[in-house]
Amino acid sequence: MRTRPLKVALLGCGVVGSEVARIMTTHADDLTARIGAPVELAGVAVRRPDRVREGIAPELVTTDATALVKRGDIDVVVEVIGGIEPARTLITTAFEHGASVVSANKALLAQDGAALHAAAEEHGKDLYYEAAVAGAIPLIRPLRESLAGDKINRVMGIVNGTTNFILDKMDSTGAGYQEALDEATALGYAEADPTADVEGFDAAAKAAILAGIAFHTRVRLDDVYREGMTEVTAADFASAKEMGCTIKLLAICERAEDGASVTARVHPAMIPLSHPLASVRGAYNAVFVESDAAGQLMFYGPGAGGSPTASAVLGDLVAVCRNRIGGATGPGESAYAALPVSPMGDVVTRYHISLDVADKPGVLAQVATVFAEHGVSIDTVRQSGKDGEASLVVVTHRASDAALTGTVEALRNLDTVRGVASIMRVEGE
Amino acid sequence: MRTRPLKVALLGCGVVGSEVARIMTTHADDLTARIGAPVELAGVAVRRPDRVREGIAPELVTTDATALVKRGDIDVVVEVIGGIEPARTLITTAFEHGASVVSANKALLAQDGAALHAAAEEHGKDLYYEAAVAGAIPLIRPLRESLAGDKINRVMGIVNGTTNFILDKMDSTGAGYQEALDEATALGYAEADPTADVEGFDAAAKAAILAGIAFHTRVRLDDVYREGMTEVTAADFASAKEMGCTIKLLAICERAEDGASVTARVHPAMIPLSHPLASVRGAYNAVFVESDAAGQLMFYGPGAGGSPTASAVLGDLVAVCRNRIGGATGPGESAYAALPVSPMGDVVTRYHISLDVADKPGVLAQVATVFAEHGVSIDTVRQSGKDGEASLVVVTHRASDAALTGTVEALRNLDTVRGVASIMRVEGE
Repeated sequence: MRTRPLKVALLGCGVVGSEVARIMTTHADDLTARIGAPVELAGVAVRRPDRVREGIAPELVTTDATALVKRGDIDVVVEVIGGIEPARTLITTAFEHGASVVSANKALLAQDGAALHAAAEEHGKDLYYEAAVAGAIPLIRPLRESLAGDKINRVMGIVNGTTNFILDKMDSTGAGYQEALDEATALGYAEADPTADVEGFDAAAKAAILAGIAFHTRVRLDDVYREGMTEVTAADFASAKEMGCTIKLLAICERAEDGASVTARVHPAMIPLSHPLASVRGAYNAVFVESDAAGQLMFYGPGAGGSPTASAVLGDLVAVCRNRIGGATGPGESAYAALPVSPMGDVVTRYHISLDVADKPGVLAQVATVFAEHGVSIDTVRQSGKDGEASLVVVTHRASDAALTGTVEALRNLDTVRGVASIMRVEGE
Repeated sequence: MRTRPLKVALLGCGVVGSEVARIMTTHADDLTARIGAPVELAGVAVRRPDRVREGIAPELVTTDATALVKRGDIDVVVEVIGGIEPARTLITTAFEHGASVVSANKALLAQDGAALHAAAEEHGKDLYYEAAVAGAIPLIRPLRESLAGDKINRVMGIVNGTTNFILDKMDSTGAGYQEALDEATALGYAEADPTADVEGFDAAAKAAILAGIAFHTRVRLDDVYREGMTEVTAADFASAKEMGCTIKLLAICERAEDGASVTARVHPAMIPLSHPLASVRGAYNAVFVESDAAGQLMFYGPGAGGSPTASAVLGDLVAVCRNRIGGATGPGESAYAALPVSPMGDVVTRYHISLDVADKPGVLAQVATVFAEHGVSIDTVRQSGKDGEASLVVVTHRASDAALTGTVEALRNLDTVRGVASIMRVEGE
């Protein structure tokens, strides 16, 4: 066994970083045995050096992250700062100075994954980022290695724990969005500014990463259609229940039926209670994968938190260290398929539409005509009303998003339609 | 990109092998792009050469598997024959002649995994076997790579589709064991001789493999406690329902609470309906993993069948080919922890015991005394009876298997106990 220790530079020492450092210390013997050489924490770059960090020798702490990654003797840089800069520059600097990189940075990977992979390849180094998607759940490695001999057709998952906590709370208690968000904030599941989660930005970054790996195609963050869940109401949950469904914020990456293009999107959707994703509770994550040969797979676990994320980081750290000792690198970016990413209008799915309409004869006929004119076939209609007001709930067969959008526009122009109360996609059937 | 193709020898061309060959042909371009070089089917060893094999050139087919693996120009041998011999000799011969090996052979890996890993290491070759456990579900790679920086405490799963199909049928229709087995046989889910499945041999082999990887310890097939599910009755399911449970055949690999030893076992068990494993239907498999840092993870998917197993084989094939091109090998056996494997008597869990007793005063006091004398604490008791006969259902708190066995022996010696109708472990709480 090689005895020179591998040197690790840790960038960031917050919830995840401190847990990485702790496990590196407490599990040092196991890590040595599994890697084939000891790993040593060679430096920890932080913003606030005066904060006491239990278990980390003060002389390892520095505020100069750039100097740390430039030292030249660092084997692996673990980046758990998050955000675009300075993380991006630090990672490319690390490659230039001979280090491999383990990152948990979904935003950066989604935005600049191609450039970072290119930098890693140019310098013959590894870039691993299991922790960037769905926390502790092994997902990147299964998709890019275990399923490397298969053809993945769909990846559909709950990849944001905050929004799943809120939606689960709304479902189980009948609470409204704001009330459920307040509880999530009080319990620490939502940040003071929850925008990145509730508006779907976090999930969209993960969708871009997953779609890229699943389809061997570069999928940029801008390619991902994104719709948040702030407008989901208690009434939507009531409608979902009537259909035997619940509502989840889903990231969906799909290959078109002809195989010639792909789509990636994030939005709230109704899914049947019988679907495995429907029973994913609280802040848990789960990802459903469909492929030609393997069929339907599901991966489930904690999607965030210091320890789970650290578990994923350390799994990558072991792999990268092993590669380094063996003089090899793991799989890099695989974007050879280069499939076009279609716009949202091309997505085909089903829809649940609630309309407020005038309660008089002929309204249903008018509405049905509009759907027919746009080529959207109706599955079921439910009508209810009193005192001159009525509501109409239409569930469609599969239709393109463009056709549905055209339909809704035309419906809004009908005198008898007072308003479109909600439009929600129906998935997982 | 390297252009010399990698040569693959396929041993066995049944349900799995023919699917591997088919995908190698239909997905040739994708495999080339993902590996970095073409892969070529260089030979297919079969027992019946006269059978027509669609898509396989007749000149590739041979009955001489030994000559095929000895050719010297084979890069990867894919072994999907199953059973101990000739598979074992062919695999070691393959290593001696410079090939790496991908195998789906759970029985062989469970029995001789250590020797095969040693042979692979001696010759600097890879031995991969994702398909040996839970078919298409990525499990070996997540356990030995993704969780390599974590400490796994428990692996508990449904790893045999045949028995899950039978138990699910008994649960949902109230059928008895024989009736459900007959249906499984008619539908092709059970073999003509179902012994390996229903007696738990298949699951025990998988438990040995999983325990070995999870705990970095050699776990032999003989170390695995094994109890089949042929004696599970409709009455057991009725009892389970009263407790809010169902019954599954589980493979359970556990680290003892003090961390100093491990156990591996296969037996039917009651689990709460709220546990994720309870809702695994039909012939699906699912494995629950608990670790220090990651927490609770679950992996779900089809556990058998030609296409799913081929998906796992091909994922390994891509990895092994990539390693070969890079001049590296993947992780080998990791057994450094060398923890003792404790016998079944040391396993601590809960129990559900049904007794047929005389319906007279004082029986419950007698029975309770026996439990107390053996240090087994009772959680709940339910008594019912008429006409001088009664039944007593006892659910215990956690106790060792040895204590429970002693309790049951003593109960059998009581005059007032007419018989022990069933004993079942209660897991997942």
